[in-house]
Amino acid sequence: MACPVGPLSRSVSTARVSRVRLSMAAPEPPFDEQCNYEDRTPTTSKEKVVVLGSGWASVKFLQNIDTEKFDVTVVSPRNFFLFTPFLPSCVVGTVESRSIVEPIRKLLRHGARPITRKLRDATAGVTAENFSEARFLEAACTKIDPEQSCVYCQDISSVSGPCNAFRLDYDRLVVAVGATSNTFDTPGVAEHALFLKELGDASALRDRMLDAFESAALQDDPAEKTKLCTFVVVGAGPTGVEFAAELDDHIREDLASLYPAEVAASKVVLISSTDDLLSSYDKKISDFTKLLLEQSRVEVRSGVRVVEVRKDAVVCLDKKTKEEFIEPSFMTLWSTGVKPGRLVEELLAKIPEQTKRSGMLVDTGLLSYGSKNIYAAGDCAVLYTGNAMNEDLEKLFKRADADGNGALDKKELLALFNEVGDDYPQAEVFQFKIDEDFDTFDVDGSGTIELEEFKALLRTIDSSLRNLPPTAQVAGQMGGFLASRFNGETKKGFKYFHKGSMAYVGQDKAAAQVSMLKNLLPEMLQEQLPLVGEDIILTGGLAETVWRLLYLDMQISNRNKLQVGFDWTKQIIFGRDTSRF
Amino acid sequence: MACPVGPLSRSVSTARVSRVRLSMAAPEPPFDEQCNYEDRTPTTSKEKVVVLGSGWASVKFLQNIDTEKFDVTVVSPRNFFLFTPFLPSCVVGTVESRSIVEPIRKLLRHGARPITRKLRDATAGVTAENFSEARFLEAACTKIDPEQSCVYCQDISSVSGPCNAFRLDYDRLVVAVGATSNTFDTPGVAEHALFLKELGDASALRDRMLDAFESAALQDDPAEKTKLCTFVVVGAGPTGVEFAAELDDHIREDLASLYPAEVAASKVVLISSTDDLLSSYDKKISDFTKLLLEQSRVEVRSGVRVVEVRKDAVVCLDKKTKEEFIEPSFMTLWSTGVKPGRLVEELLAKIPEQTKRSGMLVDTGLLSYGSKNIYAAGDCAVLYTGNAMNEDLEKLFKRADADGNGALDKKELLALFNEVGDDYPQAEVFQFKIDEDFDTFDVDGSGTIELEEFKALLRTIDSSLRNLPPTAQVAGQMGGFLASRFNGETKKGFKYFHKGSMAYVGQDKAAAQVSMLKNLLPEMLQEQLPLVGEDIILTGGLAETVWRLLYLDMQISNRNKLQVGFDWTKQIIFGRDTSRF
Repeated sequence: MACPVGPLSRSVSTARVSRVRLSMAAPEPPFDEQCNYEDRTPTTSKEKVVVLGSGWASVKFLQNIDTEKFDVTVVSPRNFFLFTPFLPSCVVGTVESRSIVEPIRKLLRHGARPITRKLRDATAGVTAENFSEARFLEAACTKIDPEQSCVYCQDISSVSGPCNAFRLDYDRLVVAVGATSNTFDTPGVAEHALFLKELGDASALRDRMLDAFESAALQDDPAEKTKLCTFVVVGAGPTGVEFAAELDDHIREDLASLYPAEVAASKVVLISSTDDLLSSYDKKISDFTKLLLEQSRVEVRSGVRVVEVRKDAVVCLDKKTKEEFIEPSFMTLWSTGVKPGRLVEELLAKIPEQTKRSGMLVDTGLLSYGSKNIYAAGDCAVLYTGNAMNEDLEKLFKRADADGNGALDKKELLALFNEVGDDYPQAEVFQFKIDEDFDTFDVDGSGTIELEEFKALLRTIDSSLRNLPPTAQVAGQMGGFLASRFNGETKKGFKYFHKGSMAYVGQDKAAAQVSMLKNLLPEMLQEQLPLVGEDIILTGGLAETVWRLLYLDMQISNRNKLQVGFDWTKQIIFGRDTSRF
Repeated sequence: MACPVGPLSRSVSTARVSRVRLSMAAPEPPFDEQCNYEDRTPTTSKEKVVVLGSGWASVKFLQNIDTEKFDVTVVSPRNFFLFTPFLPSCVVGTVESRSIVEPIRKLLRHGARPITRKLRDATAGVTAENFSEARFLEAACTKIDPEQSCVYCQDISSVSGPCNAFRLDYDRLVVAVGATSNTFDTPGVAEHALFLKELGDASALRDRMLDAFESAALQDDPAEKTKLCTFVVVGAGPTGVEFAAELDDHIREDLASLYPAEVAASKVVLISSTDDLLSSYDKKISDFTKLLLEQSRVEVRSGVRVVEVRKDAVVCLDKKTKEEFIEPSFMTLWSTGVKPGRLVEELLAKIPEQTKRSGMLVDTGLLSYGSKNIYAAGDCAVLYTGNAMNEDLEKLFKRADADGNGALDKKELLALFNEVGDDYPQAEVFQFKIDEDFDTFDVDGSGTIELEEFKALLRTIDSSLRNLPPTAQVAGQMGGFLASRFNGETKKGFKYFHKGSMAYVGQDKAAAQVSMLKNLLPEMLQEQLPLVGEDIILTGGLAETVWRLLYLDMQISNRNKLQVGFDWTKQIIFGRDTSRF
């Protein structure tokens, strides 16, 4: 069950691995068969766990795994954790890049574990002194061999030679490598668009934006200035919306005094392929966001598909009118969704049970289909529930129809969704929509949902929410859950608890749908807020304060918390910095 | 006197200009004869001043020039001012990169002018409201045509086409473009060494250092770890010494807990071609620095010349023993001095009176030799005094010998140097050495300096100090002076006032030689400090506090001041950040 030692073949590939620039633009390095893979499998009597990745899923796993039971090795080309929700703020300088990163090595320490875990540890006699730390190796995993249960890795740092390569055997493998931006094979995206997944992407966007303003300052014609200072954001998910909002704020609040003529000529265009913005959020948030963005400089183009990205423009197709139009743009942010990277794609091709292309299919224990010891968490995992709800249509309808009248009222429907969350996680996430949009599903207006209407509803749920969204929340919960399963603390399947969704929508306002806060609020205040099912929907300035406080609280270390607090204070006093570097 | 309009020649050059990476590694773009140079000369009745550059000399000039008299256009590929003395701190994360930059556009405002200038402005009726701001154009100047009095520039931003080019006529040109690192044609320097002149250099150094630690963590053999974690600094001027000290601090204080085995195996090597460190500073500072660095991990190798830089090592030659030895190093900082960049080199070649290769020869009015309207300031300028002191040997001796006894005592000698500073700026800077090292110059130990000894002394002065050092202080004073000359506020020649020299030497200690402070200190304290001539020499922890306060005070804006203050506070509380990005 271990990888063979020594060079595999000297004739097949001559590919050389170069420094990963840690951005979508830099592809993962290919597996180099010519290298001599040194065996770095640790000698240990414990069960050997190898974790790939250093994002949300990985970190939450590492902070909770019982290192008395498991010998843990983490491999990632990025030696720091990145607080991804702040990337849009980082582009415009509301927060510093250094404030939103934390070295993985620091997060492996006992001191970095959550307080609940520390208490458990204490009960088991584990203290900061005798704690067994996981091992971090900065390297890119270039191949997973599920048959031999080993991974091949390569040191790709700038000081490394071409074949500083090693392999590790594992008893269990946790794949938490995230995903890359999905270009949907749209021509020109890879060459001309920018992305926002890594820290390097943030400075590339900043550079491009300031280049545009400086070049526009060299033009006298306002039309030329507009061409240069039109910024297109493709995709109206949380990243796209927050980036458009932050960019618009930055231009109006900070750049206006330095580039008055250019700012007057500039605009931010947000392109959404659907009619809604933030379509996975509550409708009220979606509408509020659209309203607020339209009040600002941001031009929202919904129902539009991008068919090509050029160096200086985006070619768009209006889905209704079928008309093509061109939007000038030298800085196009592409944020339309994710797909698996090369490593995961190659692994999927080796396992017949892996039938999805969108990621690694896992059961509710996060174990990969077709494997006994490979687990996946985060953006690279696709949680499969065994059955789509529609397949159990009649059984579910019968279960829900408590009074047996052949029709479901709102109460019966909500009760059902409350119960079946364990078996069908998609139901959990869709719950609030049922409450709010009951009338929409009740097509004939009878006040109840009949079997045919129920079928349509389940089809909607299955199709739109079979995958959990690729968010920090989902990834973090998966990581924490997997550690608990490994530790033997739970036998239950993974269940996503939606704590809420938030988006900063510009002009010091945010939109938030927050479940977890409800119980914390005094009853009087709860009544004054528009409550929807289990959720509180906040919009406006209060939501922005909540947004800031919650994000501040989510920071991975006290250092990050204070730094972000400092950054916000600086911004309030001095505005954002407008230098390019 | 204006450049011809339109394309110059379509057959000569096909060179294309690519984005200047703002670091030594990226050469200045060449002049592209194929471009159509649009005339962007402003229409104005004022005298037209064009300023090239956005460093110390340029900014101090711009903050003081009378914009009622002059129409001022600034051209630079860098749209921000950089507080260069903090670059070493920036590498290790003691200060944030954003804290040490300020957009040029902000510095052109009336609000950014020094208080003394604002008072003058107010007298002339100039207020924030009616102030005429200088114009900033982000572009690289690719050619200066002294015959036609015009400059050719190219927009090299990432959104610009290949020939977004323009030209500007000037009545007066201020060349303040700085200088590039001098490799002395040492093999391998351009390919493998890193520099520390721009912000991009700081992140490149940081990347390389952390790459070395991460790659070393993948090695088991301590000897391999040492190879990877040996960092060589070539050049023991202020940049080299401060960088070596900050790096050593960073490794010992911040990295030791994350990379214990690697830090134990690592070392910092400082190579000096002379026997001294900081040889332009006072001997006491030099000695103290050497002592303190030797107490730390830094290995000082003096009297050593580097003959080759390789990817993984530095080849050295001991000047005394003539023995060659090899020092492993994957991160070699090259900080041995500067030379003119391509633009200045090409200009010098066109003017026969420009006989120096080290920069633009200027008179005490900072006017270029061989030109009527080209001025130079900062690192690209070489101040020429007309005569070397040695040429006026007998005249000077006679003048100094007040009592006519054919020998000069210390008092006579100091009096002479006090008087002749206007004609021989080199004397001014050397003054403190006379006081301190009088015995050294009095070779025969007679207690007085005879003609032969005087001759030797003048030769030393002429040879060592003909050029002012390429420091922020000199550049800033030149810029401010040139503005005063232009404004008609002074007819005197430029005289460098040495405010003092400071260097952070590690372990929270600094060495400072401070002239300007002396008069501010209470008399009692003055007596307790080791006074040397006009200077106070401070060493140790007190000097570090002075170092911090003075540098904080030198920050170009209140924003920078507060940010640097914040950064220091963060560092004290949390240590420096150790992530790579």
